[in-house]
Amino acid sequence: MRKVSLFIAISLDGYIAKPNDDLSFLKLVEKEGEDYGYKEFTANIDTIILGRKTYDYVIKEIGTSHYDNGQRDVYVITRNGRPNTGKTIFYTGSLPDLIEKLKSEKGKNIYCDGGAEVINELLRHDLIDEFIISIIPILLGQGTRLFKDGRPEQMLEFVDAKSFETGLTQLFYRRKR
Amino acid sequence: MRKVSLFIAISLDGYIAKPNDDLSFLKLVEKEGEDYGYKEFTANIDTIILGRKTYDYVIKEIGTSHYDNGQRDVYVITRNGRPNTGKTIFYTGSLPDLIEKLKSEKGKNIYCDGGAEVINELLRHDLIDEFIISIIPILLGQGTRLFKDGRPEQMLEFVDAKSFETGLTQLFYRRKR
Repeated sequence: MRKVSLFIAISLDGYIAKPNDDLSFLKLVEKEGEDYGYKEFTANIDTIILGRKTYDYVIKEIGTSHYDNGQRDVYVITRNGRPNTGKTIFYTGSLPDLIEKLKSEKGKNIYCDGGAEVINELLRHDLIDEFIISIIPILLGQGTRLFKDGRPEQMLEFVDAKSFETGLTQLFYRRKR
Repeated sequence: MRKVSLFIAISLDGYIAKPNDDLSFLKLVEKEGEDYGYKEFTANIDTIILGRKTYDYVIKEIGTSHYDNGQRDVYVITRNGRPNTGKTIFYTGSLPDLIEKLKSEKGKNIYCDGGAEVINELLRHDLIDEFIISIIPILLGQGTRLFKDGRPEQMLEFVDAKSFETGLTQLFYRRKR
């Protein structure tokens, strides 16, 4: 069955961004030729789910082709519909319904690229199957947390941990069901 | 110079306890003969700092000898003084002053055993030199966070990461100064 995967970087103290969506701490581990397995990871996905704020941010910073390369479906979770463009669908329905629909269809895996709101909505409904979390060697002290309070307990199965020269450590878990 | 070290376990979502100080999730990684380097770690410390609530909890659960083995100084940080007992000192002064005093003296390293209040007070004043954090493969969903909001940014140097058969991964960082 298709899996829903998280592939995301956090500070050691659990933030995905500093206040005002500041992602500059990610530069600490940027290294030419090192993508921390991102390309290999995305080779196994054909569907991306992400929040509208994250979408608008990335579109502005990088451009539309970062998500929609013409070969995968992009679901932008939003409260306010927009006309679909290319393979990008602006989805205003329920997230559990969307996951159920996608999982009933054939395909590669489903990648949730954030932001925190969509991730926590998936976690609250126990819909994430795989966690690939890269820990950046910094304490940010404040910002947007990956994990918000008020979710159900979920047991995980440890799969792997890899450390890189830059000081990044990548942790890989599966949801134990 | 003497270092201040943290040696602590958290869930993947960053909690050191579930609500009501429930530490039962630690049982997930209990294994006979495996102490995750605790004995080796404590061989290099001669001073323990901890909060009063943690102290009372451990004294009740395990007994006084868990901290005071007659060979090391135990500082219990509290708002309400108590008579000192053995090598256990109930300290009502400022935490930065205590660290400054201890660091001006000769000795082995200083171990902060928690709880979250004392750790965050140390972090707010940038007084932790070493972080040894064991990640337990579970999402607790709620509870006491290791890292509270509202601390200064602190760069870390990655030292090591070790994974164990039980699924525990131990991350080791030094404060980059």
